[in-house]
Amino acid sequence: MGHERTFETERLGRLREGVADGEALLLFDAKNIRYLTGFTGSEGALAVGKDWRVLLVDGRYVTQARNEVPGAEIFEFRNRIEGIAAVIGGHAVESLGFESSALNVEEYLRLREKLPEVPLRPLSSELQEIRAVKNGEEIQRIRQAARIAGEALAEVRSLIRPGVREQELAVELDYRMRRSGAEQVSFETIVAAAANTALPHATPGDRRIADGDCVMIDYGAVWGGYHSDETCTWFAGRVDGRQREVYGIVREAHDRAIAAIRAGVACGEIDRIARSCLAEAGLDGHFSHGTGHGVGLDVHEAPRLASGRQEILRAGMVVTVEPGVYIPGLWGIRIEDTVLVMEEGCEILTPTSKELTIV
Amino acid sequence: MGHERTFETERLGRLREGVADGEALLLFDAKNIRYLTGFTGSEGALAVGKDWRVLLVDGRYVTQARNEVPGAEIFEFRNRIEGIAAVIGGHAVESLGFESSALNVEEYLRLREKLPEVPLRPLSSELQEIRAVKNGEEIQRIRQAARIAGEALAEVRSLIRPGVREQELAVELDYRMRRSGAEQVSFETIVAAAANTALPHATPGDRRIADGDCVMIDYGAVWGGYHSDETCTWFAGRVDGRQREVYGIVREAHDRAIAAIRAGVACGEIDRIARSCLAEAGLDGHFSHGTGHGVGLDVHEAPRLASGRQEILRAGMVVTVEPGVYIPGLWGIRIEDTVLVMEEGCEILTPTSKELTIV
Repeated sequence: MGHERTFETERLGRLREGVADGEALLLFDAKNIRYLTGFTGSEGALAVGKDWRVLLVDGRYVTQARNEVPGAEIFEFRNRIEGIAAVIGGHAVESLGFESSALNVEEYLRLREKLPEVPLRPLSSELQEIRAVKNGEEIQRIRQAARIAGEALAEVRSLIRPGVREQELAVELDYRMRRSGAEQVSFETIVAAAANTALPHATPGDRRIADGDCVMIDYGAVWGGYHSDETCTWFAGRVDGRQREVYGIVREAHDRAIAAIRAGVACGEIDRIARSCLAEAGLDGHFSHGTGHGVGLDVHEAPRLASGRQEILRAGMVVTVEPGVYIPGLWGIRIEDTVLVMEEGCEILTPTSKELTIV
Repeated sequence: MGHERTFETERLGRLREGVADGEALLLFDAKNIRYLTGFTGSEGALAVGKDWRVLLVDGRYVTQARNEVPGAEIFEFRNRIEGIAAVIGGHAVESLGFESSALNVEEYLRLREKLPEVPLRPLSSELQEIRAVKNGEEIQRIRQAARIAGEALAEVRSLIRPGVREQELAVELDYRMRRSGAEQVSFETIVAAAANTALPHATPGDRRIADGDCVMIDYGAVWGGYHSDETCTWFAGRVDGRQREVYGIVREAHDRAIAAIRAGVACGEIDRIARSCLAEAGLDGHFSHGTGHGVGLDVHEAPRLASGRQEILRAGMVVTVEPGVYIPGLWGIRIEDTVLVMEEGCEILTPTSKELTIV
């Protein structure tokens, strides 16, 4: 852990390089705070000036913060905004940048009231990028998360048979991921059958799998704080002609998008490639979400692979590619991998085959 | 489900009663939106005027919203703020109340830009209360969640023995809750042993339980959308004299607080009772959080049982009572039940005995 801590202090140092005299930054996003300091609590704030930094936590987290961020100045607050006002008031701060995407308006209005003299400057877009490029250690963690998840899915595959409920499969999959070392699952696992697969964010329920059902499993594991994300759409017992055809088209969109990923390409271009592949088959109207997103300490983070996004992919980014086609009332097919962007091409980190699969 | 939907429309009707001509309310909290409409998606917005309402969702949730809220006007947005601006712009809105605790500043600033003519009025405190008093159906769901959770804990109890890791116990407990019908666990289950129990929000890790360890389990189940919340602190094999003494004091604080709960008492008074009981033993300095919180569609919701809170308990509120003593580096003891506030007294909904327990 000593190595990691030094590294994380370097990250903070890089952030502080951009801070001018009299300026301070205020971070609220728990994952950004973890990234910069190593503190893993779910709530707090981090104030960063040119030559100082203070980690603000409530009473639940004081001991943990001292253990996880030795040497840091810890401020214990009862009310977060009052704590921030006290910390900022104690330094000569003339301009306060703050993470506007991670602060709610209620607290913001109170902060303005408490610090009427200090101009508040929203700066989310800059900060959303700080975690986008992963280092070797981070990539290793995502790889490990994806491996744990994939092995659990392989175990659960044999349980998919007529009569089994969506929720049972989700429970068994989550259990196996965690028993194999996942700290948590990446998000509420989606196991959807038949018409439920037409809902991109279905919640597993009591529906029982029937012969011929399309079964969508969107799942991931967390390991060392890092997430994996993968979607398999399989067919129970048999697949009909239209499903086979659409599967092939979604697979083609997925494959073409992945083939285009490398450092230097704009995120929107990857989305365009997937979308136009579906459009060729007249199916783009059934693709109701973006093509992908960054994955790391959060399962959804920068960059976004969506229409018109100008951000440029850089080596070390880890992103999902997940085109889908959803036919309301009938079924949906999504195929998703998590990939590591490299100078030339990319590496697929999620281990499950995306060949058409009948289980 | 027909019955429930009618009921949820009544809730919306009650909300709309308070809306004047030319006024509109904007809700962002997913649980409030679920409470008012039945829509269970994780993201969206609900705009409510005197004679109209619009549910705004992104592409992932259109089909689900149509199924869950039949008859409602659904607006599909690509960007939430632009969608809201379009909906509000289409009605004669002169004043827009919005949930300031559930909107981030980034979106808020964009909303102000898009609707420069419409005054925005923050109204979180009113809305935080709308779910505080539960009806019979909601109480039944919490009771069922607590029952499922308690039965799972009883099964896991036999697994607590020297050599077992915290994380293993958490995984087994979560698995059993979900296999018994919990849709989800209420929150990341805490299983902490020895010095980790001194961290009120410990994350289960690789620590193995040893003979004589204090073992804290804070856990809950979700059933029908409603949460339970309970903490047991047990002792592995044996308990030392100081632990026994402190357990008795925390138990006394817990019991006295529960004995004081009934409709008409201020929330802060319950906190004061628990805190002063610990103070008699000189332990209040080791009680670093509030005494309790409401439980419902969220595991933490209104009201808060904390120092100075003036809110009055009402019959039908469901709240936790969870005093704790944390000795950094050594151990902590927390005892938590979820209770239903009644006109006279309260009913404990969490089923596990809080007698000193050696496992």
